[in-house]
Amino acid sequence: MSPILKILPGGTAIEARRGETLADVLEAAGFHLSLYCGRRGLCGKCFVEIVRGPVPEPTGEERALLQRRELPQRRRLACGYRIEADTVVRLPSESMLPEMPVFTHGITRSIGLAPAVKKISYALSKPGLSSPPALLDLAKDRFHEARLPESVEALRRMAGEARLPDHQDREVTAVIHSNRVLLAVEKGDTTGRNYGLAIDLGTTTVVVEIVDLNSGAVIGTEAGINGQTRFGADVISRIAAAYGDPERTGAALRTAVVDGLNQLIDALCQRTGIRPDSVYEAVIAGNTAMNHLFLGLPVDTLAVAPYYAAFSILPPVPAEDTGLRVNPRGRVYIAPNIKSYVGGDISAGLTAIDLERRPGNFVFIDLGTNGEIVLKKGAKMVAASTAAGPAFEGMTISRGMLALPGAVFRANLKDGSWVVRTIADAPARGICGTGLIDIVALSLKHGRITPRGRILDPDKKIGIGDGLFLVQKDIREIQLAAAAVKTGIRMLLAGRRLTVADLDGIFVAGAFGNYLNIRNATAIGLLPRIDRAKMFFVGNASLAGARALLLNLPERVRCERLAGKIGHVSLAMGEDFQKEFIEALNLEAWN
Amino acid sequence: MSPILKILPGGTAIEARRGETLADVLEAAGFHLSLYCGRRGLCGKCFVEIVRGPVPEPTGEERALLQRRELPQRRRLACGYRIEADTVVRLPSESMLPEMPVFTHGITRSIGLAPAVKKISYALSKPGLSSPPALLDLAKDRFHEARLPESVEALRRMAGEARLPDHQDREVTAVIHSNRVLLAVEKGDTTGRNYGLAIDLGTTTVVVEIVDLNSGAVIGTEAGINGQTRFGADVISRIAAAYGDPERTGAALRTAVVDGLNQLIDALCQRTGIRPDSVYEAVIAGNTAMNHLFLGLPVDTLAVAPYYAAFSILPPVPAEDTGLRVNPRGRVYIAPNIKSYVGGDISAGLTAIDLERRPGNFVFIDLGTNGEIVLKKGAKMVAASTAAGPAFEGMTISRGMLALPGAVFRANLKDGSWVVRTIADAPARGICGTGLIDIVALSLKHGRITPRGRILDPDKKIGIGDGLFLVQKDIREIQLAAAAVKTGIRMLLAGRRLTVADLDGIFVAGAFGNYLNIRNATAIGLLPRIDRAKMFFVGNASLAGARALLLNLPERVRCERLAGKIGHVSLAMGEDFQKEFIEALNLEAWN
Repeated sequence: MSPILKILPGGTAIEARRGETLADVLEAAGFHLSLYCGRRGLCGKCFVEIVRGPVPEPTGEERALLQRRELPQRRRLACGYRIEADTVVRLPSESMLPEMPVFTHGITRSIGLAPAVKKISYALSKPGLSSPPALLDLAKDRFHEARLPESVEALRRMAGEARLPDHQDREVTAVIHSNRVLLAVEKGDTTGRNYGLAIDLGTTTVVVEIVDLNSGAVIGTEAGINGQTRFGADVISRIAAAYGDPERTGAALRTAVVDGLNQLIDALCQRTGIRPDSVYEAVIAGNTAMNHLFLGLPVDTLAVAPYYAAFSILPPVPAEDTGLRVNPRGRVYIAPNIKSYVGGDISAGLTAIDLERRPGNFVFIDLGTNGEIVLKKGAKMVAASTAAGPAFEGMTISRGMLALPGAVFRANLKDGSWVVRTIADAPARGICGTGLIDIVALSLKHGRITPRGRILDPDKKIGIGDGLFLVQKDIREIQLAAAAVKTGIRMLLAGRRLTVADLDGIFVAGAFGNYLNIRNATAIGLLPRIDRAKMFFVGNASLAGARALLLNLPERVRCERLAGKIGHVSLAMGEDFQKEFIEALNLEAWN
Repeated sequence: MSPILKILPGGTAIEARRGETLADVLEAAGFHLSLYCGRRGLCGKCFVEIVRGPVPEPTGEERALLQRRELPQRRRLACGYRIEADTVVRLPSESMLPEMPVFTHGITRSIGLAPAVKKISYALSKPGLSSPPALLDLAKDRFHEARLPESVEALRRMAGEARLPDHQDREVTAVIHSNRVLLAVEKGDTTGRNYGLAIDLGTTTVVVEIVDLNSGAVIGTEAGINGQTRFGADVISRIAAAYGDPERTGAALRTAVVDGLNQLIDALCQRTGIRPDSVYEAVIAGNTAMNHLFLGLPVDTLAVAPYYAAFSILPPVPAEDTGLRVNPRGRVYIAPNIKSYVGGDISAGLTAIDLERRPGNFVFIDLGTNGEIVLKKGAKMVAASTAAGPAFEGMTISRGMLALPGAVFRANLKDGSWVVRTIADAPARGICGTGLIDIVALSLKHGRITPRGRILDPDKKIGIGDGLFLVQKDIREIQLAAAAVKTGIRMLLAGRRLTVADLDGIFVAGAFGNYLNIRNATAIGLLPRIDRAKMFFVGNASLAGARALLLNLPERVRCERLAGKIGHVSLAMGEDFQKEFIEALNLEAWN
C-alpha cells in the first residue's frame, strides 16, 4: 500500500510512492519549498519537521546544519528524506519559497522568490586527500547540474579565485546562474550580497531598479531619458538613423543608451552603497528595436518589409559584452520579443499581470511611445502595435514633459480657470500625459475645442497659467495618439469578433499609473467606456515584469513560451485601418 | 491492439504504440537512423520505405525532398511518420547512421557518425509576410532545441549574415553545435564543407588529424614536437616552469603549444585545400597539465599537495578564446580529465577501446610520457599514473628520437652484429622507443648487460652502428621507465586482489603501435607475460579517442560520465611503492 503523507499546517493528505523524496512529493502537490541548491542537501533551506513517521539518523550535512542553526532534532531536509511509511510533516514558513508582490497598486499579483543568480558558500577541504576533486568542480557541485562557463577568460579568473587560500579553512562562495553555469567564485561568505537590476528600457524613458535577490525588496530606483532621443523621438526615427550605417550610427545609438543606463546604475550603487560587483544580473524589458540597439545588433531589417527582427528569444548574455557596469561576469537577460514591433516590454508586462492564467477576455494596453495592445480571447492572444508616438510622454508637445517633479499631472476647470496639480507639488515646469488628457477632455466638455479638435479661441491657444499652454498642433498630436490606440483596440476586437461588452477587463499600463482620470480618458476616446471595476491601471508593467523575471527563473520559461505563441496583427495594412483611423480622430467616447 | 512494426531487411517485428513516430520506435529498438536535424523533418536524412501500411500524403517538405532526390513515392520521413496500423518498413542503408572504424589495426571498434557540428541549408522566405519569424530563429529552428549563442559579438556577426541577401531566394546554411547552439550562418549551401580536428596533445608529441565530418574520413595527419619541450621534458618540469609565475611563464607555455598546433593546422589546411573557416571544431585529448596549460589555466595547484586540478569536465569553449586557427566561432572540446594526474588523453583512450562495455578484467596502459594505467575489474575501474618519463619517446636518451622517419624502430642481433630497421627505411638518425626495447632486451639475452642493467663492455657503451649507441645512463633511464610501469601494474592488480592470470586482456597504447616486439617488452619486464591473444596493441589511442569524440556526440556524454566514475590510486604513497619499485628495476620477465 502507498504511504500517506499528511502536511501541516492545513492537513492536506496525499498518496506518495515509497522511496520518493519529500521534496518531490511536496513540489508535485503545489507546496513550493525553497530548493535553493537544487536538491543537493547543501543549502539547508528545505528543512521540514517530521511530526510522525520514521526519523532516520541525520546525515553529516544535516547534523552540521541542525547544530549551527539550533534547530529541533526532528527536522530533516526534504530533498533527502525518502518516504517509506505513513508520514506527517510540518512545513515551517522559513522553508517555503517566499512570495513577493509584483505591483504595489492596481492589481494583486505575487511571485515566488527564485532568482536566476544564486550564491552558496562552502569551505575548501583540507589538504591530505590523495586525489581531490577539481577546484571548480567543488564550486559547481554545490548546485544541481551546473557546468563551467564557456569563456576561457572567465575560467582563468575563476581557477585563480577557487584555489586554496592561505588559510585552509577559509570559506569561498560559488555564484551560479540559471542553476546551470558557474559565474564566479568569491572569497569569503558573500551570500548576503546578491543584487540584480530590473530595467525598463523605454524608447523615451529608462527606469532602473536595484533589487535585493535575497529578499526580493526593491532597494532603489532611478529614471532618466533614453540617451538615444537625440537621434529621434520614436522607434522609426532611431532605426532610420542606424539604417545604412550600422557600424557608426548603430554603435553611437548603442553607446548612447548604455551610457545613460550606466549613469543610472552608478547613481543607484552610490546611493545604496551596493558595489556593482555584487550585481550579477540585469533583466531588460524593452521593445524589439530598443533590444537590438542595446546589443548593437543591426536594425536595418526592422526598417523594410517584411520587417525581420534578428532574434526573439535570447539566452542571458555576458554582462561584459553589453557594457553595463555590473559584475562583468554577470548576465543580462532580455525579455523575449513577441514580434518585430511587439517586444520584450510587452512580454514582460504580460508576465507582470499574469494575463495568461486569467480566465476570460481581456485587453492589455501599454501606453508608451508605441502603444502596444494585446487582446486575449479565451486561451488565445493576439498583439498589435500602434504608431501612437510619444505624445503621452510629453514629447512633441510644446510644453510637454515626462511624469517628473514639476509636471502638471492633473488639471481641472473651475469657474473658467484652470486648477492644476504638479508632481511632488513642485513649481510647474510642463505638462505630462495625464495632464494633457485632462486638459483636452475638459476643453472639449466646456466647448473650448470642437470634437474635431479645433481650438475655438481666436488665439488658437489654451492657456493653463504658469506659462503653460497647448496650441493647435499639440491638440492634433494628442488626437493622433488617441486615435491610434482606439483604432488598434477596435480592430483587434473586430478581428476576433468581440465587442467592448465581451471584455472581462482592460489593463492599462504606462507611466500614467494611478494618475489617469478615467472619465477624461474615455471622454476623448482614448479608452472605451467600460465598468470602472473592469479597468485596471497597473502603471509601469514592463518594469514590474522585468522585476518578476529577475526574481523568478521559471517565469522566464513561461514568458518565452508565451512570446512564441502570441499572434500578431499588422494594423496598418488595408483600407479598414484608414477608415477606422479617420473616424477615430474625433474626440468622443465610444464602446 | 498495438500495431506491429516489421523491419526490413532482417524482418524484426516489434510492438509499437499507436501514434508513436517510426523514428522513436526504431531508435528504441536499436536501429540508429540518421536523425541529423533532430526530428524536425528538415534534413531529409531519415527516409524509410513504407512497404505495407498506411502511406499518408507527403508533407510539403517531404514532397520537395522526394522530388529533388528522385526517390520512390512510398518513402516517408521516419521522424514524421506516426504508426497507426500494422506496418512494414524497409530501412535504406543511406538512412542509417554510418559507422566508422575507430582503429585501423589492433582491435575492431566502430562508432556511429553523429558529430557535434552539423550544417543544414535553407532558403530565406520571400518578403510579403506580415510578421515573419526572427532571422536567427529561422536558422536555429532548423535544429531541435537550438538556442542562440551567449556571445553578443557572435550574435552581431550572425545577425548580419542571416539577413536577407540581395536575391531573395538564395540559400544560407546554419551551423550548429551539440544540437544546442547556433554557431554561424553561412551564405550559400556549404553543407558539403564540414571538417573537424582530432588532436592528441601529448607532453612530447602532438598529432593533428583533419577529419571530414560528413564522411568520417581522415583527410590528413600532421605530427610534431610539443613546443613546450624547451621548458622541460616532462609534465612536472613544465608545471615547475609555470609555477609561481603563471602570468609570464604560463602565457609562454600556452603560446608555445598553441603556436605549434597552429603550424600543424596550417600545414594540414594547405595540403588538403580545406579552409580553416570550414573547421568548426577541434577535440583535444591531453593529460591534465597539458589541458590546463593549453587553456592558460593556472597549474600551481597541480604542483603541491593535495594536487587540485582546476576542472575535470569542461563544456566546449569558443575556438577564438583558445587561439587555435580554425573558425573563430567554432568550439574546442577538451576530453574530460579523470584526476589531476590522469587526464583527457586517458578518458579519450578508454573511449577509443570502449573499455567500459567490455565484460571482464582488463588493464589499459598508455605508454606516453607519463605511463598511465587503468585497471578494470568487473564494472569498476581505477587509474594511476606512473612517473615513467619520456624515455620511450626517445627523450633523455643519448641517441633517442621520436618514432619519425629515420628512427630505428626494430633491432636484431645476428651473429654478434646489430641489424636494424628504420622508419620509412630512411637513413638512421636515432632510436625510438621500440628500438630501445629491442636493443636492451637483446643485450640482456646475449649477456651484454646484466639483469641489473650494468653494461659489461669495458667501453660502457652498446654500439649499434651508424653512429648510434646506448650508454649506461640510457640503460638506467629505460630501467626506470620500465620499472615505473611494472610497479604501477603490479600495485593496481594487488590493490584489487587480482593477478595477471585473472586478466582477460591488456591494451597497450602509445606511439609504439604495431612495432613493439612483445617478446622483448616482456623480457625486460615492461609488460607482464600473458597469452599473446590477450595482448592488444592499439597505437595512439588518445588520438583515436579524440576522433571518436569528434565524430560522435553521445560518446562525449558517456566519456564524461565514465571520467567521473573512475577511482584513482596514488602510487607514490607509502613504503610498498619503494619496495616494489626497487625490485622492479631488475630487467626480467614477470607475471
